[in-house]
Amino acid sequence: MTKNRKHFVSVEDFSNEELLYLLRRARKFKNGTAGWTMPEKQIFAANLFFENSTRTHNSFHVAERKMGLDVIEFNVQESAVSKGETLYDTILTLDALGVEVCVIRSGVDSYYNELIDSESIHCAIVNGGDGSGQHPSQCLLDLMTIQEEFGDFSNLQIAIVGDIAHSRVARSNAQMLSKLGARVFFSGPEKWYNPDFDEYGTWKPIDELVGTVDVMMLLRVQHERMNTEENDNFSKEDYHEQYGLTLARAEKMKKNAIIMHPAPVNRDVELADALVEAPKSRIVKQMANGVYARMAILESVLS
Amino acid sequence: MTKNRKHFVSVEDFSNEELLYLLRRARKFKNGTAGWTMPEKQIFAANLFFENSTRTHNSFHVAERKMGLDVIEFNVQESAVSKGETLYDTILTLDALGVEVCVIRSGVDSYYNELIDSESIHCAIVNGGDGSGQHPSQCLLDLMTIQEEFGDFSNLQIAIVGDIAHSRVARSNAQMLSKLGARVFFSGPEKWYNPDFDEYGTWKPIDELVGTVDVMMLLRVQHERMNTEENDNFSKEDYHEQYGLTLARAEKMKKNAIIMHPAPVNRDVELADALVEAPKSRIVKQMANGVYARMAILESVLS
Amino acid sequence: MTKNRKHFVSVEDFSNEELLYLLRRARKFKNGTAGWTMPEKQIFAANLFFENSTRTHNSFHVAERKMGLDVIEFNVQESAVSKGETLYDTILTLDALGVEVCVIRSGVDSYYNELIDSESIHCAIVNGGDGSGQHPSQCLLDLMTIQEEFGDFSNLQIAIVGDIAHSRVARSNAQMLSKLGARVFFSGPEKWYNPDFDEYGTWKPIDELVGTVDVMMLLRVQHERMNTEENDNFSKEDYHEQYGLTLARAEKMKKNAIIMHPAPVNRDVELADALVEAPKSRIVKQMANGVYARMAILESVLS
Repeated sequence: MTKNRKHFVSVEDFSNEELLYLLRRARKFKNGTAGWTMPEKQIFAANLFFENSTRTHNSFHVAERKMGLDVIEFNVQESAVSKGETLYDTILTLDALGVEVCVIRSGVDSYYNELIDSESIHCAIVNGGDGSGQHPSQCLLDLMTIQEEFGDFSNLQIAIVGDIAHSRVARSNAQMLSKLGARVFFSGPEKWYNPDFDEYGTWKPIDELVGTVDVMMLLRVQHERMNTEENDNFSKEDYHEQYGLTLARAEKMKKNAIIMHPAPVNRDVELADALVEAPKSRIVKQMANGVYARMAILESVLS
Repeated sequence: MTKNRKHFVSVEDFSNEELLYLLRRARKFKNGTAGWTMPEKQIFAANLFFENSTRTHNSFHVAERKMGLDVIEFNVQESAVSKGETLYDTILTLDALGVEVCVIRSGVDSYYNELIDSESIHCAIVNGGDGSGQHPSQCLLDLMTIQEEFGDFSNLQIAIVGDIAHSRVARSNAQMLSKLGARVFFSGPEKWYNPDFDEYGTWKPIDELVGTVDVMMLLRVQHERMNTEENDNFSKEDYHEQYGLTLARAEKMKKNAIIMHPAPVNRDVELADALVEAPKSRIVKQMANGVYARMAILESVLS
Repeated sequence: MTKNRKHFVSVEDFSNEELLYLLRRARKFKNGTAGWTMPEKQIFAANLFFENSTRTHNSFHVAERKMGLDVIEFNVQESAVSKGETLYDTILTLDALGVEVCVIRSGVDSYYNELIDSESIHCAIVNGGDGSGQHPSQCLLDLMTIQEEFGDFSNLQIAIVGDIAHSRVARSNAQMLSKLGARVFFSGPEKWYNPDFDEYGTWKPIDELVGTVDVMMLLRVQHERMNTEENDNFSKEDYHEQYGLTLARAEKMKKNAIIMHPAPVNRDVELADALVEAPKSRIVKQMANGVYARMAILESVLS
């Protein structure tokens, strides 16, 4: 088992031991017992977000600063990327300037392959989300939040609800959760489901799941997928009524069951407005845990 | 009297004692006797400017850094705000990430109410300007600059000249100055005056004021209010001639009278180009004082 | 000989001694023997890039941080510049806020004159590139890279190839290199050459130069200059074939000759893709050296 990898681009090939180690470090960062010592020499990290982000971006920023890194906020609009410079040449540049970690979000699936394969690029690549690929730091913070709540993954029942096929959260979470012993279910519009996911769990209508699962993990609905012909023109109200966590459905949840969402939430679409900050919601806690999960990730690529 | 408030969103309900205390602290920050000790633990501040700003934004940034805060420059364009995330959910996120102070400028009047009323949001809110509402840190730096010049507010005569009705500086300044004992006058186009202001001072033509007041406080004219039918299509030149501080008018000012302007100045509109950096001008000093006024504000919400 | 100047806006009037002193300091920053002590009091530097930049901008940022400066990344889009505030008034503001060094890139030739002539502006101005004027920090890093390779400039033969007339790198480099004793040649489309340059060197077709020079310094071709009538509609492929460093031409280079380019490179235009990271290329090293050259520049204006 390797505890440290040079890059952090995907969790899909992580062993349970590796994942549990990262989760342990994240918890230690959270409770202040990680024993991290601020670097004596300056370490530069750069954040490159080619897609809009509030949580992931600022969460990495806070994590980097808490670890004593010097942060470069790469301004995509004002860089040579606007004159057509490629991601490869951009990272080659930052690497030459002495940057040791690049956190990147890009709309391009698996954008990181050419970077980690390059012999000229030496900095660590941390994936902040790629196209409709992965979002491994989100996966880690989700696992951390579930583990914090229930201690263990085995015997847990977890529903992932929404646009399963297009989510970059659904696949990693389903895969990792089932590997760690949880039982995974999927729900949401059937058109948005992909039978590929059958290997990690079972699709069921939300009303068959809401009363029995321990975790209702709701996924963000992309606005652009609403009111289209392909999707039978259903509206936000329709979505909420048919697939969302309404107040009525939330009433049926088990006493200790929790609500999760990677955010930003479409209030009254994926879940009722009043549930976002309700006692069962762990949505704010997920955001808080994101900082510690990312500190664990940064530690792993820096060592 | 409470010297410290959790938030700093408006000065209108401040007592004279509170204001004078903040001014005293600002002066001490300026002359290096504030006795501020850099925080041992990291404190994160975030600046969110939804409207363009050079002075207020960079001034808060410098003030935050001088106090040893870790600063997050929230990039509005590259955040989830661009996908429709609300200000409330954005601040909820930053709060969850561990941000303790949010400095916000927004085009929405009183945007801060829902933030300071929320039970889920714990960070301090500092108002960097709201809609056509308030701009309380500007008020404080203006008061500081006047106090530095004259020592005391009583017996001072102060003219506020320009678009009184639409200014977010005019009301707080008029209110606070009259409360502190100064005599306030207003001038500028009568159409841009609002009789509401009668309770703080008297409207007079600029030529009746220029020779008698101690402070000529000029307000920025918004370009979009020029050359419109509503405003009788008057041009910048017309404005300068009729309501501006021309060189000729400046000649008539009292020996110790000073010129103030919140900037950015439209040179040769509100005042003659050559007056901006003239001996009577305190415009550059206002900008310099802004840093110390904001340090006093940050101190008050952090303690 | 003055080793320190208040501003760093051009190298054209630098003596050889001054240049060699800066190069010596840059080398010392690189090998860790500069003996720079982190400032005890905070020093604020601001970066204002009115034109897109990856290398120069981030390189200055890293240099500033390595010297312990507090960096303000001035956001052009979100500043009052968008409401028409001038560069002069922007710098006047930053100066008032306590900024001691402003690094500026602007599309306006010699934008810096009004700033360094102003009696109200006290901060140091560092030119990060002006219009089709100069790019003095690029010149310094280029000289540093050549010196590192060959030890000395005399007897070196250097070809500068590309859009000579419109480049802000060509003139300073040609001037300084010839002053330092190197022999300079120019190449590229004859239409893009300017006889003004005859005083620093000789124009020759690339094929007459490639086998004899020690340095092939290629300049970036601006996309907008391609496929225009004025330029006989030649394409990128044409440019590469006629004026670029093709693989075939590179074969003819001397054993110890090197390839340089200020980047961003148009791969397969100015030089063949495979040459960018080839053993003869110093392009990545140029970027790395840029940080140290800029530290030497910052040191010179700070002392």
